[in-house]
Amino acid sequence: MTEILLKVRKTLILLILILFSSRLNAQEYEKILRSVFDEALTDTSAWSQLRYLCTHAAGRLSGSPASFKAIQFTVNALKEAGADTVWLQKVIVPHWVRGFEKCSISSGILGEKELSISTLGLSVGTLPGGVKSSVIEVHDFNELRELGRTKIEGKIIFFNWPADNRLINTFSGYGGAVNQRLSGAGEASRYGAAAVIVRSATQALDDFPHTGTTRYPDDVIKIPAVAVSTIDAELLSIWLKKDPALSLSLITDCKNLPDTISYNVIGEIRGSEKPDEYITVGGHLDAWDITEGAHDDGGGCVQAIEMIRIFKKLNINPKRTVRAVMFMNEEISGTGGKTYATEAAEKGEKHYAALESDRGVMSPRGFGFDAQGERLARLQSFSKYFVPFNIRDFDAGGGGSDIAPLKALGALQIGYIPDSQRYFSYHHSANDTFDQVNIRELQMGSAAIASLIYLLDQFGY
Amino acid sequence: MTEILLKVRKTLILLILILFSSRLNAQEYEKILRSVFDEALTDTSAWSQLRYLCTHAAGRLSGSPASFKAIQFTVNALKEAGADTVWLQKVIVPHWVRGFEKCSISSGILGEKELSISTLGLSVGTLPGGVKSSVIEVHDFNELRELGRTKIEGKIIFFNWPADNRLINTFSGYGGAVNQRLSGAGEASRYGAAAVIVRSATQALDDFPHTGTTRYPDDVIKIPAVAVSTIDAELLSIWLKKDPALSLSLITDCKNLPDTISYNVIGEIRGSEKPDEYITVGGHLDAWDITEGAHDDGGGCVQAIEMIRIFKKLNINPKRTVRAVMFMNEEISGTGGKTYATEAAEKGEKHYAALESDRGVMSPRGFGFDAQGERLARLQSFSKYFVPFNIRDFDAGGGGSDIAPLKALGALQIGYIPDSQRYFSYHHSANDTFDQVNIRELQMGSAAIASLIYLLDQFGY
Repeated sequence: MTEILLKVRKTLILLILILFSSRLNAQEYEKILRSVFDEALTDTSAWSQLRYLCTHAAGRLSGSPASFKAIQFTVNALKEAGADTVWLQKVIVPHWVRGFEKCSISSGILGEKELSISTLGLSVGTLPGGVKSSVIEVHDFNELRELGRTKIEGKIIFFNWPADNRLINTFSGYGGAVNQRLSGAGEASRYGAAAVIVRSATQALDDFPHTGTTRYPDDVIKIPAVAVSTIDAELLSIWLKKDPALSLSLITDCKNLPDTISYNVIGEIRGSEKPDEYITVGGHLDAWDITEGAHDDGGGCVQAIEMIRIFKKLNINPKRTVRAVMFMNEEISGTGGKTYATEAAEKGEKHYAALESDRGVMSPRGFGFDAQGERLARLQSFSKYFVPFNIRDFDAGGGGSDIAPLKALGALQIGYIPDSQRYFSYHHSANDTFDQVNIRELQMGSAAIASLIYLLDQFGY
Repeated sequence: MTEILLKVRKTLILLILILFSSRLNAQEYEKILRSVFDEALTDTSAWSQLRYLCTHAAGRLSGSPASFKAIQFTVNALKEAGADTVWLQKVIVPHWVRGFEKCSISSGILGEKELSISTLGLSVGTLPGGVKSSVIEVHDFNELRELGRTKIEGKIIFFNWPADNRLINTFSGYGGAVNQRLSGAGEASRYGAAAVIVRSATQALDDFPHTGTTRYPDDVIKIPAVAVSTIDAELLSIWLKKDPALSLSLITDCKNLPDTISYNVIGEIRGSEKPDEYITVGGHLDAWDITEGAHDDGGGCVQAIEMIRIFKKLNINPKRTVRAVMFMNEEISGTGGKTYATEAAEKGEKHYAALESDRGVMSPRGFGFDAQGERLARLQSFSKYFVPFNIRDFDAGGGGSDIAPLKALGALQIGYIPDSQRYFSYHHSANDTFDQVNIRELQMGSAAIASLIYLLDQFGY
């Protein structure tokens, strides 16, 4: 009897201990997340870093002097944040340089008008005298084919297909419109076009040209390509209806210089239990030359640095090695992300997970995971810890172009998802400035990312 | 046997019909919500209306010429939106007018510095020569009591308690700090203070003074009160630590003119089945004189007008009478909301529900309902229709100060909840401008509000 009672007592104590300890743990995680948010929301380091990138290293396109300034600055910022190790990883990058650019239309009926344009990245320039020709407006690649070489040869093609503003996720609207920028020049060149002018890929109706890369297939002649602001695209379309014979003059003298050497900037906290497993958190350090690169993607960079700072400040010692990576050359050809993955493969590194923040500095809505089934459910179960912070979206499908090459190494792909509504009013334009960033949205994002990485490292997936 | 078979067949057909028709209905609701969002996201009426309010009727405080311009403009906008009836409702409003204002500090050690200030609404002005005195910094009302009359008499009290930036919902942070603005002057006057200078109630560290009303209890002498920007509050605090004897000079010549007549602007769509039941959707038309009143609350006004326009455009005929109401004088004493409810009570109107949009023009997160239990659950069940639009927050607790008086008439109180992170960087300051509003955030909000009102009217609560 006494023995049975003792046994019962023992079992009860054990049960209480288990219950108690597991409850304590859940509370501990909640407490740690709370402290992560408290730290992020009351500190201005990331904010100051972003100000520096936007003012002293604006227009930091791969190979530019500003990009090297940004590299040096983020090395120091990672050291100040307390990273155990900080180093540079050599990356070969294209070196495209914008020059003089001017575009105007001239109509015997309507007069003259200068258009707000921006040469597309990788575009060739015009001859010194420029291109002058009549303009054919098209709305998709089928129209090009229907027009054919006879009608297109020697002409300037005006791609004017707008983003679909009805799509709630602005990335979908952008995705539906961006092909005219990426492939318009190449496609039009097949039919002998002299140059292309492309409606900016944005939902906004604004005066800013939104630039970006264009890609020429190997088998076509490279022709000059520029983006035009959506307001001027509307105007050009109206003028063309009134005077189809109007002429457009375009001069651009951009240069494709030889590939050059640049760097990814990497800072890490060595893992306490599994130092040979890596979790990568990154944004890209390069930014379009006409922008300050605040939303795209200075914010993603400083949020990754901030994760390091917060972990160190709060004595959070991750089990796995956690890295903040500033990728170089996302905007033109993604060699930063590719090099990072290639070298990781060569060294036989085990990459457990990778998170990319490259969707602007807006209030956090959540995360997207490249996972399904039980794995997705397990990742989604983390969402309960985010309820106090009103971060509710834990959805399937996520990643980013810089971390995509890590997928082959088995790294879980995670995309940080801020609210998307404003993003494309800044994207790739002179409107992407520091003063368009709100400090709390930046801080909330940093806290969300640091919190997710902490839980992911603790619980696994 | 044949009879039984026939009966079974009949039942089956009925069952299929019910299932099918209910499925069709669910699809119909989804389709209608989709069309509401499509319409909002591709139309710029509300955007243009907001531009007008911000440029031609900026600073439209109750009683001001700009407020009457705003009244006239919204009458026309409601008519253009297709409201069946549009009318003005007389409201008695206070008429406070800002004048010259200047504040500077002077220290024998540190020099001179002008501070960025804004006189608080309803404040009395200083005597023509101004007030000059040393300054005592306090952080809550207890410190006042501890100091007592001997130390406070004739001095300028500097209330410097910051908003708690750790609070995720910025309205909570604001709520914790706003008492120094509302009651600081009254409390300090009890101890004989000559004037008060109050830290702006915002999370932002900025150069903008954020104004707002101050309230004097009947039993105190009214003393001048101004808000100071948070950056200058920090500076003043630092200077006071270095030179506690520094003096502050304040001149304000604002005026409290006699109460005057103004108007709520009301437009309605007559209900098709229950015309005598009312659903009110509103924002406030008045705005602080130093602002354009874009986020606070031009956005809420044009979203209510947009609901009318969308319903009419899409031939949505609500069962109940749906009203868009631009309330006057929310900012100072709320007589617009009170008058609206008083007259409704006098007429014996049945007010079914009321929604207020007065939290800025940010991406919609959802709605707050003043309901609980089954009623709340029923309202929350609407959230499934909002999944495609990523609007997920259907929470308990909601309303707003203009619709609060309708609660006594039984109206369900609903608050429209956009993301809160940026709001207090605009609130009551010169930073609340049209160019700080994103068109898609405005459109998404209009669509969300129109959709919720549509479902509420269809399903009831």
